[in-house]
Amino acid sequence: MSDFLIEHTPSAYRYPLLIKHLLHAPMTQAADQEIVYRDIGRYTYRDLRERIGRLASALTAQGIVRGDVVGVLDWDSHRYLECYFAIPMLGATLQTVNIRLSPEQVLFTLNHARPKLLLVNVEFLPLVEQLRDKLESVEGIILISDDGTFPASVGKTAGRYEELLAKASPDFEFQDFDENTRATMFYTTGTTGVPKGVYFSHRQLVLHTLIDLVGFGSPARQGRFHREDVYMPITPMFHVHGWGLPYAATAAGVKQVYPGRYQPDLLLDLIKTEGVTFSHCVPTILQMLLSAPNSNAVDLSKLKMVIGGSALSKSLAKAAMQRGIDIFAGYGMSESGPILTIAQLREPELTGNPDEEVELRTRTGTPVPLVDLRVVDDAMNDVPHDGKTSGEIVVRAPWLTMGYLGNASASEKLWQGGYLHTGDIGTMTAHGMVQITDRMKDVIKTGGEWISSIELEDILMHMPGLKEAAIIGVADAKWGERPLAILVTASGDAIDKEAVQSHVKGYADKGVISRFAIPDRIKFVDALDKTSVGKIDKKALRAKYGDG
Amino acid sequence: MSDFLIEHTPSAYRYPLLIKHLLHAPMTQAADQEIVYRDIGRYTYRDLRERIGRLASALTAQGIVRGDVVGVLDWDSHRYLECYFAIPMLGATLQTVNIRLSPEQVLFTLNHARPKLLLVNVEFLPLVEQLRDKLESVEGIILISDDGTFPASVGKTAGRYEELLAKASPDFEFQDFDENTRATMFYTTGTTGVPKGVYFSHRQLVLHTLIDLVGFGSPARQGRFHREDVYMPITPMFHVHGWGLPYAATAAGVKQVYPGRYQPDLLLDLIKTEGVTFSHCVPTILQMLLSAPNSNAVDLSKLKMVIGGSALSKSLAKAAMQRGIDIFAGYGMSESGPILTIAQLREPELTGNPDEEVELRTRTGTPVPLVDLRVVDDAMNDVPHDGKTSGEIVVRAPWLTMGYLGNASASEKLWQGGYLHTGDIGTMTAHGMVQITDRMKDVIKTGGEWISSIELEDILMHMPGLKEAAIIGVADAKWGERPLAILVTASGDAIDKEAVQSHVKGYADKGVISRFAIPDRIKFVDALDKTSVGKIDKKALRAKYGDG
Repeated sequence: MSDFLIEHTPSAYRYPLLIKHLLHAPMTQAADQEIVYRDIGRYTYRDLRERIGRLASALTAQGIVRGDVVGVLDWDSHRYLECYFAIPMLGATLQTVNIRLSPEQVLFTLNHARPKLLLVNVEFLPLVEQLRDKLESVEGIILISDDGTFPASVGKTAGRYEELLAKASPDFEFQDFDENTRATMFYTTGTTGVPKGVYFSHRQLVLHTLIDLVGFGSPARQGRFHREDVYMPITPMFHVHGWGLPYAATAAGVKQVYPGRYQPDLLLDLIKTEGVTFSHCVPTILQMLLSAPNSNAVDLSKLKMVIGGSALSKSLAKAAMQRGIDIFAGYGMSESGPILTIAQLREPELTGNPDEEVELRTRTGTPVPLVDLRVVDDAMNDVPHDGKTSGEIVVRAPWLTMGYLGNASASEKLWQGGYLHTGDIGTMTAHGMVQITDRMKDVIKTGGEWISSIELEDILMHMPGLKEAAIIGVADAKWGERPLAILVTASGDAIDKEAVQSHVKGYADKGVISRFAIPDRIKFVDALDKTSVGKIDKKALRAKYGDG
Repeated sequence: MSDFLIEHTPSAYRYPLLIKHLLHAPMTQAADQEIVYRDIGRYTYRDLRERIGRLASALTAQGIVRGDVVGVLDWDSHRYLECYFAIPMLGATLQTVNIRLSPEQVLFTLNHARPKLLLVNVEFLPLVEQLRDKLESVEGIILISDDGTFPASVGKTAGRYEELLAKASPDFEFQDFDENTRATMFYTTGTTGVPKGVYFSHRQLVLHTLIDLVGFGSPARQGRFHREDVYMPITPMFHVHGWGLPYAATAAGVKQVYPGRYQPDLLLDLIKTEGVTFSHCVPTILQMLLSAPNSNAVDLSKLKMVIGGSALSKSLAKAAMQRGIDIFAGYGMSESGPILTIAQLREPELTGNPDEEVELRTRTGTPVPLVDLRVVDDAMNDVPHDGKTSGEIVVRAPWLTMGYLGNASASEKLWQGGYLHTGDIGTMTAHGMVQITDRMKDVIKTGGEWISSIELEDILMHMPGLKEAAIIGVADAKWGERPLAILVTASGDAIDKEAVQSHVKGYADKGVISRFAIPDRIKFVDALDKTSVGKIDKKALRAKYGDG
């Protein structure tokens, strides 16, 4: 054995990858650096470190010990950043509660994660009060308020955040423990079933932090995060650790700006007055920023912006580019912690031609170091890296959730064959550029080929006379599955099926789509079912027409 | 227990930090990228990966199994890079043999590390042949030759590198194993005693690689390594993994240039023709590059250069800056794997004024992320971070040697108190800037204060009439230790001791040095003992005068 593993002299420090160790570099070098909260206040990294100590002392006084879960319901704030560190550094688990879920879902996640204590911004107190009688594990609630006012009609609480911190000692001695200790958890809501809990260890978060710094730090120019950037998240901190960047920004010792609840005018003001240079958000928020009333009054040309969460459309990317934003896509998911790929441009690709660049900036990206990303067929064999052949994206990396909390069957399905199944369908080029084309559930597997329902729908929508088109897969004894085209015509009358087939065949002849995609089953309906946000509701369509 | 540590669903991949995983990103994205060897040849990352497989197959055929040691004696080459990966990826240990040591020391390190197989460049064959009868563990020698010619008078060997690779299969399946498996080892020769073996695990090297990428990648501009750099080491690959940068450069997928034996004209040619932009070396090599006959004919203004190994003098740094080199210092040692600090300048510090910049570029640097660097007194208490108070630099990081191979007492001394003792004396500012002032052994501890012998010598050298000065510590019943000044006068005659004391007192009065530094023991000699390279031989002086 001693010939294989390294020997440790008894006094040697066997350095565990713990979140507390991320603080060495910033506290040594950037203790005077600023952390800003909205237009409300600012303090230094030295204050951050002191308040992490105070929070740990206060939580310990509340009876929090290693292994306990502490839930947080707050907007993006310096307090949330304090929780990102203090709670895991105690050996407890930080549950970042998604306050955008329905009250029933919030209740489910709280009773599933079983937090002992909740830290609640008074803005979410009505929600918590409404659930309070049904909360099975919560023993105390600590209230957070920006302006120091608290609602009068509140039940018994365990105290107020600022008061508890003020009373507590900053000198908390954080112990070492196993780097595989659970540090964080939160819930992913996917499209089906109850929310599923994912969880991450100290080791995973430290490695994710380093890879965020490597991935965003290593391009020559485009989409680059560096030590003198000013960072502001516009992705909620309850959502996959704000993509890990609050940890990375802290480790890098940069100036940070936390915007609280997202208000377009305030976000734009903060970008302007605090000089924000690096941020990230989902397409909807970007759209909101660009179309806000005072948007044009703010110079966005110093801003680098990572877009994730859903696909970055070319039109939105172009609108951002017109404002001078260095925009680019990233890809990941709750289960992956999240970072997997980043779509950064190389120097020769920075032609300045927006039509060329937008194609590259909106790709899914290339895998960051240590990510073993494969595009595989049903038998888990790699598909050719030709930028055309589709397969499921499966991954390994040192920071992926090792399962769903208390859900053995979903966990095993997630990790089937030793790779985490993203459920996304995509292609890869010879140079590692990934492009997601579909969700797994939207792909029709027929005759050994995978047909993109999105692509087929797009082709159908180019047919004159058709108003709406949805494709779902239906079971087929011979082919495994066949596409069913559910169509709405402009006139309301059915049109000739052969005309539809001939239209698709035209694309198949040109090699745009497989011949297997030509639908033999076509159904005309008056209208397609829609979700509450106006998307085509495939779940409803499958329920209605899925038996063929 | 399950509340503390994360749970792993059985199918989940528990990603070990193994060197092979560094290859995912470059092989996916940069398979066509070039690796150049001198003016002799070039191949792609795809070829590198294939040859790593072939080398593993060939070594396995030679009987190398997990836990075996394989020693390499070569100049910096693509082959060495292949060994950096293939040997550890097999689960074996790569011993990087320091071919600059004396034959007796090489023999000691080989019999101490006990390699089963040696890979030997024919240029070092005379050395190996000379030792061959005394090699206790070596069962075979594989010969390496740049031009395919091999000496005729050679004993039996296990084959030739290129022939073995040509015969071997590229499809070697690298297994997973414990990330704490020993990956590399080499010997440090310090100033006293026999060479001491240090060793590093896969986990340590993967983390060191990420930190190299973070540390060199995160500055806004100065001293920055990025994905489109062209990398060439000019620090021997047998020396502390070429400072880890061959691993980092490979993980980043950049173009790499390996210069073989260092010949100034060829190095300059490679910088020019291959477009090298990032390199690192010791001051002596930099001096050699700047003063080479064809040096001025080569544009060095695109070159970023890290200097380590010994202090970067201001005059040398300035000479490099005059040539347009972006020069800066780094700090580490064999025991630390090596990276600890980097002296990069922030944007406001890049004034363009060489007199200002040179002060900053030659500092020891600030600690890279995860490095817990302390400057401590004898009782392991932190000294004030005032940029003035000296103490020993002690460190923790996840990539430090966990001891000296088979040397329990030296291992424990190295890690006394749970921190690795660098043996370096330095200061730290409030902003984490470290400056090394002395080696521990050159510091005089007197009356609870630490006196820098280098500083005191410097002060003495400013006294008219003195030609040479050396300070050693001698035991003192009252003060613990006192400085003994050993002086050589210009005239050869002794001068008044009180004049010497008064000279030093002048500096103490100004606060430049402690009053404890005023020497009460002064000895005039005809000449100071010197080492073979012309440095003052303190060891010899201590032997002669150390008893006071």
